[in-house]
Amino acid sequence: METVQELIARRDAALGGAYRLFYAKPVLFARGEGVYLYDQDGTAYLDAYNNVPSVGHCHPRVTEAVTAQLQTLNTHTRYLTTGVVDYAERLLATHAIDGHAMFTCTGSEANDLALRIARLHTGGTGVIVTADAYHGVTAAIAELSPSLGIQLAPHVRTVPAPPRAGDVAAAITDLNRHGIRLAAFLADSLFSSDGVLPDAPELSAVQDLVREAGGLYIADEVQSGFGRTGSHMWGYQRHGLAPDIVTMGKPMGNGMPIAGIVARHDVIEEFGRSARYFNTFGGNPVCVAAAAAVLDVLEAEHLPANAEATGAYLKAGLTRLAGDNPVLAEVRGAGLYFGVDVVDADGAPSGELAAAIVNGMRDRCVLISATGPFGHTLKIRPPLPFSGTHADQFLSVLTGVLRQLA
Amino acid sequence: METVQELIARRDAALGGAYRLFYAKPVLFARGEGVYLYDQDGTAYLDAYNNVPSVGHCHPRVTEAVTAQLQTLNTHTRYLTTGVVDYAERLLATHAIDGHAMFTCTGSEANDLALRIARLHTGGTGVIVTADAYHGVTAAIAELSPSLGIQLAPHVRTVPAPPRAGDVAAAITDLNRHGIRLAAFLADSLFSSDGVLPDAPELSAVQDLVREAGGLYIADEVQSGFGRTGSHMWGYQRHGLAPDIVTMGKPMGNGMPIAGIVARHDVIEEFGRSARYFNTFGGNPVCVAAAAAVLDVLEAEHLPANAEATGAYLKAGLTRLAGDNPVLAEVRGAGLYFGVDVVDADGAPSGELAAAIVNGMRDRCVLISATGPFGHTLKIRPPLPFSGTHADQFLSVLTGVLRQLA
Repeated sequence: METVQELIARRDAALGGAYRLFYAKPVLFARGEGVYLYDQDGTAYLDAYNNVPSVGHCHPRVTEAVTAQLQTLNTHTRYLTTGVVDYAERLLATHAIDGHAMFTCTGSEANDLALRIARLHTGGTGVIVTADAYHGVTAAIAELSPSLGIQLAPHVRTVPAPPRAGDVAAAITDLNRHGIRLAAFLADSLFSSDGVLPDAPELSAVQDLVREAGGLYIADEVQSGFGRTGSHMWGYQRHGLAPDIVTMGKPMGNGMPIAGIVARHDVIEEFGRSARYFNTFGGNPVCVAAAAAVLDVLEAEHLPANAEATGAYLKAGLTRLAGDNPVLAEVRGAGLYFGVDVVDADGAPSGELAAAIVNGMRDRCVLISATGPFGHTLKIRPPLPFSGTHADQFLSVLTGVLRQLA
Repeated sequence: METVQELIARRDAALGGAYRLFYAKPVLFARGEGVYLYDQDGTAYLDAYNNVPSVGHCHPRVTEAVTAQLQTLNTHTRYLTTGVVDYAERLLATHAIDGHAMFTCTGSEANDLALRIARLHTGGTGVIVTADAYHGVTAAIAELSPSLGIQLAPHVRTVPAPPRAGDVAAAITDLNRHGIRLAAFLADSLFSSDGVLPDAPELSAVQDLVREAGGLYIADEVQSGFGRTGSHMWGYQRHGLAPDIVTMGKPMGNGMPIAGIVARHDVIEEFGRSARYFNTFGGNPVCVAAAAAVLDVLEAEHLPANAEATGAYLKAGLTRLAGDNPVLAEVRGAGLYFGVDVVDADGAPSGELAAAIVNGMRDRCVLISATGPFGHTLKIRPPLPFSGTHADQFLSVLTGVLRQLA
């Protein structure tokens, strides 16, 4: 059998330097089921990281739906098919938005499309994002994603997360001073790459300010959508917002490439008139079948309720652990999405210690990662069927890793 | 049963105005198999249009590969998996490029990524495309896709298709005069949206000019790749080119969302160093399984050879028809990709007559479309298992439509 090192060498040669691997000791997975991934020796890894296979790895209902559709028909949206219309109606019903749904393949494409629509609707180009935002990898979206570390476009302004009304007002003023009209304020409703910040008390005021300036509020629900936060289907609903455009992705098809936007009718109207939009694979019958199955499973298995219940249980456990371990400075979370800040003995953010914990967990077969401006925030966001027993296993392993670090 | 008109009304309400439908009488498909699509009444339509299900609608080998992978594992490229490495090696072997493969979900994303890489590598921003080029729908790619009819970016120049060295030299001079350094010349190797132009005798000279100016030659193989042209696996090989970056999409996964690029090592190096690239669904195990199955079927069923043979047969038939019908002014094609110009009694390009032929064919259950600057070029590009019998059926129906038009 090929060793992990041999495969890594082949991979580097074939894929090149832009591809990174997780963990000091990268792991080679052979199969997945529920909240577990298994390496080639059959060792089980508890998955507390992957929010894409949100209803569980290799969920049979998703597989069956995709297989049945692949055997029947897979075309595109320029022919009539019923599935995409049924799904769009179902998706729209989960939002309090009187508008339309449009489909892409990736969250990057969804944000890119939202930006095109916002620019056309407002006549502006200015975009305000948070200081460590990540919204995607297209050319237009990468240059408004500060967390990528590349140069931002001149029409982009950043505000600290969670956003405060005063900072957003100042950013709008600064854009205007440079002759740039605001097109949109774009924010992840959980501020994941800013360090996972579920509390953002001024977001509603921000929304008002953005509208007064003629801009649109775009809620990026790629991380926070589809029941992840437990209490609500969509992260923006936790903040009592009414966005002009909502973008969605990652868990939408449980790993099948489907993403999209929902936008108010009046916002999308001009774009619909002047731009034909066609995404070859976007909303194709097979990906839509996966997405419909995801909604089915979310409902049938009460996964948002489980995210809320298990999330509360895990949060209590993490908070208890943080009380006993000064290295864990703060626990934040909503549903099954947590950020836990890691600090050194002086209380300073420590990306190094966070990485040591992430790698220590991996060596004990539990998968998490780190995020935030200093890379010092543990990012914990398991598939939604995570149970109390899984949470206990997680906490027990984390306890052991912390003990060894101390 | 819901009528087509009822479904169209629901669709317009759910998806909005940016979504278009093919044909004066849109068709509702229920299933597909091989080179046929079937409507809800079971009527068979001969598919002479769809190049995405390139190895045939609902090919069982693709379905089996996807299903098996969905049942086993579907993660992303930040964990090690063997499939994506094996496939990347296999894909690289089909190109004469010493470099790397990177994966996206759509051709738009592939061109967008190629543009980011070209800009970083060259330090330039200028892009030269053909006058009616289409390269995708991201913000950055839409504004260099003249066929969309939206405003082009200031750093974009167009040249008539097929490109001539003199025009490209003039475009480079004009960019430089405006202080813009050339990043890339980007061209569909079949010039599909320019009207399907398989002959481009000066492309090799263009490639030299672009290199001399410090730019990259990007071959967009979304339309012309994966054996479509019969004689060669890649369209650029027909022209004897050695592109710096090749972009691929549509038929890559027979409808599963996978696309990507192949680039020379030195071209991608700086991007790999300075930019981490992660596309959540890009090159995931399930889409890679589909893509590998497509290569398997292309080989096992000798589909490029079939494209060449059936293509030659169909081209002879089309040319014969054009001889008998002055409305068909010119037949161009390579492999199973044809453009047939439609003109009125005065010999002027007629988008109206082309639309009448497209709709007439649809009414007789044969699917084609139209393209080109005047919409007067019939676009004919069936799935690759198209046989001589299918070509006969196609020609017979086209003959009938032309007779009725006359």
